[in-house]
Amino acid sequence: MIRFNNDYNRGAHPAVLEALARSNADSFPGYGVDPVCERAADEIKKHLDCPDAAVHFLVGGTQVNLTAIAAALRPYQSVICPVSGHIHAHETGGVEHGGHKILTLEPTEGRISAAQIARLGEDYETSPIREHITQPKLVYISFPTETGTVYSLRELTDIRAVCDRYGMYLFVDGARMGYGLAAQGGDVTLRDMARLADMFTIGGTKCGALFGEALVITAPALKPDFRSFIKQNGGMLAKGWLLGLQFDALFKDGLYFDICRQAVEKAMTLRAAFSARGLPLQPSPTNQQFVVLTHEQIEALEGKYTFEPDHAVDGGRMCVRFCTSWATTDQEIAALAADIAALP
Amino acid sequence: MIRFNNDYNRGAHPAVLEALARSNADSFPGYGVDPVCERAADEIKKHLDCPDAAVHFLVGGTQVNLTAIAAALRPYQSVICPVSGHIHAHETGGVEHGGHKILTLEPTEGRISAAQIARLGEDYETSPIREHITQPKLVYISFPTETGTVYSLRELTDIRAVCDRYGMYLFVDGARMGYGLAAQGGDVTLRDMARLADMFTIGGTKCGALFGEALVITAPALKPDFRSFIKQNGGMLAKGWLLGLQFDALFKDGLYFDICRQAVEKAMTLRAAFSARGLPLQPSPTNQQFVVLTHEQIEALEGKYTFEPDHAVDGGRMCVRFCTSWATTDQEIAALAADIAALP
Amino acid sequence: MIRFNNDYNRGAHPAVLEALARSNADSFPGYGVDPVCERAADEIKKHLDCPDAAVHFLVGGTQVNLTAIAAALRPYQSVICPVSGHIHAHETGGVEHGGHKILTLEPTEGRISAAQIARLGEDYETSPIREHITQPKLVYISFPTETGTVYSLRELTDIRAVCDRYGMYLFVDGARMGYGLAAQGGDVTLRDMARLADMFTIGGTKCGALFGEALVITAPALKPDFRSFIKQNGGMLAKGWLLGLQFDALFKDGLYFDICRQAVEKAMTLRAAFSARGLPLQPSPTNQQFVVLTHEQIEALEGKYTFEPDHAVDGGRMCVRFCTSWATTDQEIAALAADIAALP
Amino acid sequence: MIRFNNDYNRGAHPAVLEALARSNADSFPGYGVDPVCERAADEIKKHLDCPDAAVHFLVGGTQVNLTAIAAALRPYQSVICPVSGHIHAHETGGVEHGGHKILTLEPTEGRISAAQIARLGEDYETSPIREHITQPKLVYISFPTETGTVYSLRELTDIRAVCDRYGMYLFVDGARMGYGLAAQGGDVTLRDMARLADMFTIGGTKCGALFGEALVITAPALKPDFRSFIKQNGGMLAKGWLLGLQFDALFKDGLYFDICRQAVEKAMTLRAAFSARGLPLQPSPTNQQFVVLTHEQIEALEGKYTFEPDHAVDGGRMCVRFCTSWATTDQEIAALAADIAALP
Repeated sequence: MIRFNNDYNRGAHPAVLEALARSNADSFPGYGVDPVCERAADEIKKHLDCPDAAVHFLVGGTQVNLTAIAAALRPYQSVICPVSGHIHAHETGGVEHGGHKILTLEPTEGRISAAQIARLGEDYETSPIREHITQPKLVYISFPTETGTVYSLRELTDIRAVCDRYGMYLFVDGARMGYGLAAQGGDVTLRDMARLADMFTIGGTKCGALFGEALVITAPALKPDFRSFIKQNGGMLAKGWLLGLQFDALFKDGLYFDICRQAVEKAMTLRAAFSARGLPLQPSPTNQQFVVLTHEQIEALEGKYTFEPDHAVDGGRMCVRFCTSWATTDQEIAALAADIAALP
Repeated sequence: MIRFNNDYNRGAHPAVLEALARSNADSFPGYGVDPVCERAADEIKKHLDCPDAAVHFLVGGTQVNLTAIAAALRPYQSVICPVSGHIHAHETGGVEHGGHKILTLEPTEGRISAAQIARLGEDYETSPIREHITQPKLVYISFPTETGTVYSLRELTDIRAVCDRYGMYLFVDGARMGYGLAAQGGDVTLRDMARLADMFTIGGTKCGALFGEALVITAPALKPDFRSFIKQNGGMLAKGWLLGLQFDALFKDGLYFDICRQAVEKAMTLRAAFSARGLPLQPSPTNQQFVVLTHEQIEALEGKYTFEPDHAVDGGRMCVRFCTSWATTDQEIAALAADIAALP
Repeated sequence: MIRFNNDYNRGAHPAVLEALARSNADSFPGYGVDPVCERAADEIKKHLDCPDAAVHFLVGGTQVNLTAIAAALRPYQSVICPVSGHIHAHETGGVEHGGHKILTLEPTEGRISAAQIARLGEDYETSPIREHITQPKLVYISFPTETGTVYSLRELTDIRAVCDRYGMYLFVDGARMGYGLAAQGGDVTLRDMARLADMFTIGGTKCGALFGEALVITAPALKPDFRSFIKQNGGMLAKGWLLGLQFDALFKDGLYFDICRQAVEKAMTLRAAFSARGLPLQPSPTNQQFVVLTHEQIEALEGKYTFEPDHAVDGGRMCVRFCTSWATTDQEIAALAADIAALP
Repeated sequence: MIRFNNDYNRGAHPAVLEALARSNADSFPGYGVDPVCERAADEIKKHLDCPDAAVHFLVGGTQVNLTAIAAALRPYQSVICPVSGHIHAHETGGVEHGGHKILTLEPTEGRISAAQIARLGEDYETSPIREHITQPKLVYISFPTETGTVYSLRELTDIRAVCDRYGMYLFVDGARMGYGLAAQGGDVTLRDMARLADMFTIGGTKCGALFGEALVITAPALKPDFRSFIKQNGGMLAKGWLLGLQFDALFKDGLYFDICRQAVEKAMTLRAAFSARGLPLQPSPTNQQFVVLTHEQIEALEGKYTFEPDHAVDGGRMCVRFCTSWATTDQEIAALAADIAALP
């Protein structure tokens, strides 16, 4: 069975595991206040052009999302989020459990626009009964989006401008950041992220680590006492250096960027194969490819490969997702590409 | 200035005020555990055919909504609500502040359907990743709806059946219950409410009281320790008998039903006047009438009457709301009807 | 039965009821944005020497407490409160339901000291693991306290200084403010409150109103968007002018101060009677008197008067509470004083 | 530097790391629904005599505590906890952030008693104003306690009986469970835990794992939909099998019990050494030893060993904590024992 069902079905890149093994007998201070985390943060900051950024390491995506939002908002403030956003669709109401309403926007190809956000900001500012509605205060977007698309630098810049106009924070969920930065035709860098977002994550779990998300905070107002929020929300790892070791291994020498770029290249090979076979594809320049298959075609592939149903399409067809990852091999791609070409 | 802007712009029906004045020198036990509240609850229960119903009196609508929902749901459970629902649109995220997600449905003429609700129930039950989404557990609807329409007995019965199928609670926000029960062509009674809903409110604030909402709980699972939820959420009035006195005055001899029916009749007179003048009206068989006026027509009326803009309509027109209430007089109606007939 | 069991067992001072009756037919804008509330706020501000204070009117004490605390604190911040504090002991965990920990201090005669508060502030500031504990950010005290005592101006000034040193807010629960200001031997005025506290309430429910608490906010950081917190927590009365009318009636011509002073004088008469009879009294210069009675003495009084058991005392005796209020008459006092003198 | 400062300053037992390395290239289903987690749960259940127990694996202690408590309580219910309890003293108000009050009890040697708990249960049941206070519904204790002591089987049985009488849940925080089960003179087994507690954790982080806590739920009412709570609170590890692998490695062949027993034996050697030197020790039959040292003695040891200050003692002395762990070697113990003997 060759697994394309997601990008988190295997352990870690060997360099990460080696780092863990190598330091297993060493002693460290607890709770993420250790030299390894500091070094990892420094490695990340080299890519940011933002020496004052705060970098925190947390274990998981839902955890970092709910913690960051809890830290940013006062109780009557809400989050703007695409309907497809992970915090809205797949985190069991974690944001609401933390007390905050989510205002949803209908995305186009996974993205929401500056104009849509501005409308909500304007609605609030001009409302005669402002105290009866929540204040939209934080914009949550994913990079890449849930469907694998990315925002252009222009789009992000426009969203930033709207956030400035209405006093909103911009928070970018980068659970697949590495793949987003390597997007075919993409023009956004980590430096841009640090310049445009108030907070963003750099995902480890799906990009070569056993687990872990780095949260970068650039907005001065969001930095103080952030560790209190991590602890309160159960996100402070006792052996915090385990996160530092992994991110240090990934960011030293740019491994993170390399393995994600290779995964995207492999996804593009698959995309070309599906396209050559004449199969309808959703737009995606990153490691997730959404393709429409007939029942027969699914049957032809599912004995040998794993992949995920996404949604039903007319004519009894199904849109399914194939993911590459840092762990995908050239052989796996070659095999699948050949089988795609041979599809009924 | 004659006020049609809303149904809560004056004090109370004289009978209510008299009851307060008459008992002002008497002493009562505090916190709603007093003979007056008991008597008021009994008066209400006469209309319910449900002797085991629990009746609580709270001061306001947002308060009773958030308290009832807090009492009914566990943290991972969510509320189904029309997009236009008061808890979603006008309560500053009170439900989310209490920790619960709201799943919205697009209403038709203010109403959501059993089929729409069933779809959300089915989605949850069949989800392979159920723990990543919230469980829709309580259906919130308003009777009448925000736009003045009402559910038919058939529609409510169907919704009840869906709630039974998926183990959901049905909660009916009756802030304007009196007007809903008197709806022209409506076929729902308080007895039906008690039979079909797990909880519902009987609004006092907009129906003759100074303030106060009666909450009727019929579902056995929702009754225990409900007073603890009232207190925790700040809704327990120290001089609770003030609520009992008002509801007793309103329900003794059916005053509540009478004054609301008269208000609806007056609204129907206005509706007929708008209609005769050829002005577009939204459907509404209750005390709120939404009519589309030109800028010129608005100018013609706004010097003498108050009414509320609802939303812009094409051609520079505006849909506005006229409300009658228990306090509206025949003279006021006659004056407005005449002025409608004379509109440019 | 003559009632001394509490100070909220009757309706309202006649002046309050008249104000409600007089304006019952008038129309007002909703939600507390009306000329009456404005006028009432102005009447209150005349006593504050603080023209920029924000004044909000809410219905009840638990409600105003939880709303004010929700508005003041971020999630990792906690409240300092005497063990006997109302928010800790009698509000069903409303503050914790809102997400905040309460750190308790052992009071002396109902009061906590600046030194005790400073210790908690110092503990936090010097903690090497600050992120593992909550930040004490708001000091909650009652004036008068739960046992009827009051803070002196010196004590309040010292607490203010500690709050300044550690960046804490001072919030004074004045559910019985009127009685506290009239305390025998007390030296604190409303002007002092406005100068020393960041927020404080002026209780109406127990001091002549049907219901209602005025919240005065002097700290600039706590003023913005406060109405959003009121609405979100279910504390915004639709017919908000009902609160304004009551406080206007009470503060115009100083009625509030007069009726509370008279109640305290009557309590002092009772105190003298108990004392003359040789019965042990807890210290209290306000309207609540706590006296230790034997079982026999309780029996002698309870047929004619209501009063509340507070706690058991050795020797089978009971400490009980007698409350006077704005509604207590001279005859009632004379009767009880005579019966005290005749106690077995 | 030889580290006795805590029991989580190193990586994992070699068997754990090997398990991770061995399966690094394998693919697994995500979110803890995988054969490894199932196998690990089965290994744990072999020690429980409770085949219907639910076993969940979470990353950290604060996380598992707040999740378990969120799942067990309704909003007006509270937790009974010793003042020294971790959830009260060291988790940044996580329980309160989740909405629940903590009622504290003064412990004796770290333990609270059945009688103390019964008093709170009785207070609630007999309260005439029950709705004004929270219902104590869950008892939280640690095994071993924060100061290294353990409950006897008798004590736990008594607490269970009180919980049954008042309808309370018993939740045991077993972050150091392995050391507690190996307590010198202790008589409690995992079987007892499963029989007496409604939920308890088996700590991995401090007992040989890189990270991870197993939560065992025996109470039927607490099992349904528990995974929804894990996800909502950010505690569901994407690569959940990493937790299963670790617990499988620890419980297969009883490694967990062996390494913890050895750590406790080493602690007893230290204890004997301190005792022989005549130094005052707090009672502790487990891996944490609290000893009172003079400033001079601390200076003599702190160049070579790490240990933690706990609290100041009179005479300028300090009570400090020495921890052994699964990673402590015989040589380290021998060295420290010799240096203790040679203390000034």
